[in-house]
Amino acid sequence: MTIWFDEHFENKIRFGARVKRILFNDKSAFQKVTIIDTEALGKALLIDDLWMCAQEEEATYHEMITHVPMQSMANVKRVLIIGGGDGGTAREVLKYPSVEHIDLVEIDAMVVDACKRYLPEMAGGAWDDPRLFVHIADGVSWVKDASNGIYDVILVDGSDPVGPAVGLFNADFYRACYERLADDGVLVTQAESPKLFFNVHIDLLQTLSDIFPVVAPYYQSILIYAGALWAWAYASKKRQPQIVDLQSAHAIAEHTHLYNVDIHQASFAVPNFVKRKFNR
Amino acid sequence: MTIWFDEHFENKIRFGARVKRILFNDKSAFQKVTIIDTEALGKALLIDDLWMCAQEEEATYHEMITHVPMQSMANVKRVLIIGGGDGGTAREVLKYPSVEHIDLVEIDAMVVDACKRYLPEMAGGAWDDPRLFVHIADGVSWVKDASNGIYDVILVDGSDPVGPAVGLFNADFYRACYERLADDGVLVTQAESPKLFFNVHIDLLQTLSDIFPVVAPYYQSILIYAGALWAWAYASKKRQPQIVDLQSAHAIAEHTHLYNVDIHQASFAVPNFVKRKFNR
Repeated sequence: MTIWFDEHFENKIRFGARVKRILFNDKSAFQKVTIIDTEALGKALLIDDLWMCAQEEEATYHEMITHVPMQSMANVKRVLIIGGGDGGTAREVLKYPSVEHIDLVEIDAMVVDACKRYLPEMAGGAWDDPRLFVHIADGVSWVKDASNGIYDVILVDGSDPVGPAVGLFNADFYRACYERLADDGVLVTQAESPKLFFNVHIDLLQTLSDIFPVVAPYYQSILIYAGALWAWAYASKKRQPQIVDLQSAHAIAEHTHLYNVDIHQASFAVPNFVKRKFNR
Repeated sequence: MTIWFDEHFENKIRFGARVKRILFNDKSAFQKVTIIDTEALGKALLIDDLWMCAQEEEATYHEMITHVPMQSMANVKRVLIIGGGDGGTAREVLKYPSVEHIDLVEIDAMVVDACKRYLPEMAGGAWDDPRLFVHIADGVSWVKDASNGIYDVILVDGSDPVGPAVGLFNADFYRACYERLADDGVLVTQAESPKLFFNVHIDLLQTLSDIFPVVAPYYQSILIYAGALWAWAYASKKRQPQIVDLQSAHAIAEHTHLYNVDIHQASFAVPNFVKRKFNR
């Protein structure tokens, strides 16, 4: 028997992979959480039947959300990850010896528990690192709580703006992030597909632009995500998305799948169809 | 009834779209040729059940194969297109007033005939342009025939290296292209997906490097192509892939979907997983 899992976009487009085994499938208070093993992409995390990450196609996403902000600063010490319950982003952040403390704030314990048990490779040992503090909590409340302190880097690694992640796409949330961000810090958020979620992408850039003086979208291709071309948004109070230490960037790139100095800079090229709606 | 067409990659991954109507479906001497109308992507050409182009996702491909070489030269007069039977590449080349003569050499008359009848939008009037000469002929033989003259730009717009396009991936063909190319001319060929067809991609770059002094891969994301991240290879005898006239590039970009000056330059950033196998 041949079993396929397909992510459907508006019942008009689908991307699927052949499934070897279903390792985990349950419903939390927030969403459906599934881990499958596939023929071509290794093990994969699905949330509400949408691709989140797969072993053979996760490096691009996790490298781009992490190394672009981390290489745009030096000596990053405190990092906040909102979402990121699979551990992949934490894994990349922990590659920086300067990092002293990471708060990973994931709303859904089931995501963390299932990934720890059935997809531990994604975190690459991050769960055991004494610098990583996992909090099962609402990211929106977290950033509104001043007692959580100030972060050099904030990474918003949530899912699509439906279900529990909807609060990660509005001005209220990003204004609170602004308060939690160091003056010379950097925030990066996943910013959806400019192809299939064009309006969400543009709205997010506009929302960020109303709050942060520096906002720049950046792009890479991700096979498993609807739209193939994926976006992140870089935001800061004053810092441009430029590599600050070429030696450090080259050193990180010795162990990356995709990321390197050229890719960092090239990712900020904005396609014309985006530029016509967002240009600053 | 819901009908889907899916392109399958090794029966492990698939990308599909919901089909409204099948407009054309026949077998030529070379391959199966199908034109469908889809819910999300408009009308699409399939060859041997593989996505070739779709109205809503063709601009990136046709702009990248055309404007990168065309903007790396000035005053291009004679252009050769091998393949390109849907007319999309010719449509982009014809945007240049300097172009006097295009030979479009497509092996399969059925592709041209079906596209002219069922997908005429793809060529955007190119079929009626007196500068375009369509030849139903084998591209490999065409470039080996010195009487066909010398071209400023050669665009190899064929399908995957199975079936009739297999000859477009070997050294013999590219040596003949070298002979047909002006000394300061540029050749660009589609170069498959570095993700799913990694070895084909690397082998093609190596083949070109044995023949052309300047070889550079470039990349963009294409939703409908297996692997999402797609590649083209730029090759020349001496000319680097740099925009020669910013004003001309900006003028072209006023009417493109994706292409602009930043995208041109950024597309040449090579991912690490390619660099480790091909770096020059």
